Amino acid sequence: MNSAFTEWMAAKQARTEAALGRFLPARDSLPQRLHEAMRYATLGGGKRVRPLLVFAAGELSEAPPERLEVVASAVELIHVYSLVHDDLPAMDDDVLRRGRPTCHIEFDEATALLVGDSLQTLAFELLAGQALGERQIEMIALLAHASGSRGMAGGQAIDLASVGKALTQAELELMHALKTGALIRAAVLLGALAGQSLREQEQRQLDRFAKRAGLLFQVVDDILDCTASTATLGKTAGKDEAADKPTYITLLGLAGARDYAENLRHEALIALSGFGERARRLTELADFICHRPF
Amino acid sequence: MNSAFTEWMAAKQARTEAALGRFLPARDSLPQRLHEAMRYATLGGGKRVRPLLVFAAGELSEAPPERLEVVASAVELIHVYSLVHDDLPAMDDDVLRRGRPTCHIEFDEATALLVGDSLQTLAFELLAGQALGERQIEMIALLAHASGSRGMAGGQAIDLASVGKALTQAELELMHALKTGALIRAAVLLGALAGQSLREQEQRQLDRFAKRAGLLFQVVDDILDCTASTATLGKTAGKDEAADKPTYITLLGLAGARDYAENLRHEALIALSGFGERARRLTELADFICHRPF
Repeated sequence: MNSAFTEWMAAKQARTEAALGRFLPARDSLPQRLHEAMRYATLGGGKRVRPLLVFAAGELSEAPPERLEVVASAVELIHVYSLVHDDLPAMDDDVLRRGRPTCHIEFDEATALLVGDSLQTLAFELLAGQALGERQIEMIALLAHASGSRGMAGGQAIDLASVGKALTQAELELMHALKTGALIRAAVLLGALAGQSLREQEQRQLDRFAKRAGLLFQVVDDILDCTASTATLGKTAGKDEAADKPTYITLLGLAGARDYAENLRHEALIALSGFGERARRLTELADFICHRPF
Repeated sequence: MNSAFTEWMAAKQARTEAALGRFLPARDSLPQRLHEAMRYATLGGGKRVRPLLVFAAGELSEAPPERLEVVASAVELIHVYSLVHDDLPAMDDDVLRRGRPTCHIEFDEATALLVGDSLQTLAFELLAGQALGERQIEMIALLAHASGSRGMAGGQAIDLASVGKALTQAELELMHALKTGALIRAAVLLGALAGQSLREQEQRQLDRFAKRAGLLFQVVDDILDCTASTATLGKTAGKDEAADKPTYITLLGLAGARDYAENLRHEALIALSGFGERARRLTELADFICHRPF
């Protein structure tokens, strides 16, 4: 990883953190406990992979940074809401997230439920409340579709139903295409939509990239869940195996999953080849997603 | 209640039911169990008060019915999502809703959580996915603001924090202005926004009406919780007292709450007086909300 990329990444992560801090309701505004919990769950942690994808994809279409920080924040709010709800006792029942107690442990279950609900609403309030150019309504529809029952939440439902079952690779990929892939893909497409229109062929190639990147992220996530420590991940490691969840490791073995990740990275990069220098950050991000240590 | 109004109401309720049936994902589409649960929670019940307000307010601005059914469905989806989450064990822990087992009883807690999440998303997907005229983005922002932590979900958080406490009337009204009032007000404003622009003075009067109607609905709800039976309500009666929740009854007594409701109804109707015949359905609805038996 070159140092220019590392600096770019740190700058965009800091910009996302600052934007989220501004967009979230103030800690002392009513209802205070809810707002404090929303800030606790959202701020001060996270790799901000989806916001980074938004910023990187925005370079393809020369999207204005002040639009990208709105889009990046909205996508991250959807992601954080899903984590808060996934961690609840009725779902994955987890106590650790981003190296800290999960929201329902630090506050309480009812508050965590409302935090997730309110973070989702805030994502749409943001996307509708700021000027994002002429494709704003299309952008809102895209984020909603990617998040709902035919996207992220639907993937979560399939995940719950699959515990203890042996899935085929096709079934596993459908689940992940929804659970993780849909929002990763949306991040990429939304970043580009915030700028100039891409040509049709470019749009198709970007969507190819976005789908491969989503899958790649999940395959690497499965590898890390199996190989990294809880301290490194900042969340409970080894959860998939403990929960008897089907993963790419159970399906392909560790070496097979690593090969598969490498293939996906390669395909993702090929999809970007027509963009030239404009796709530099997106290319570097795909490498980062593939080789990240956590 | 005159029979023309009763017929109008039945027609709009049927139209809302049919629209929701079309907008919700099909029962046999993946993930099936989630989609089945979303349909279970939403269809086949409910007074559809918020959709009725959308349709009635739409008459003020000659809004096209095909837009109003989209708006009415979106507002109702937000309402239903809030019921599904409120009924969860971590919140009100209720087993009965609209005369049937609540979603987490009929299905399971994790599914009910995802049902609420997905219904909220679908509301925004609908509002962004259909043509609603030139103020579409403003409408999305309005619904989001009314639903989130500075609206409905925020009111719910204050409600949770208030159990066992004696609130002043001002505190109680702030809570209800958010918890129930914000979405009722949004229904009225959104119905009007789907048509021609109102004059500034008309817009102000409509907002006065919308706020009074929201408060009126809650005062009558408190009266019914205290006086009607579980069978009549289709949900558990006497819950507020059992949960030691502050209500308008604890604050004003039953007779005082009835007087207050009558005053609010009167003020609501005065706010509509400048609209003449165009406000006929909205006027009748305010009467209905005040005198409904359930």
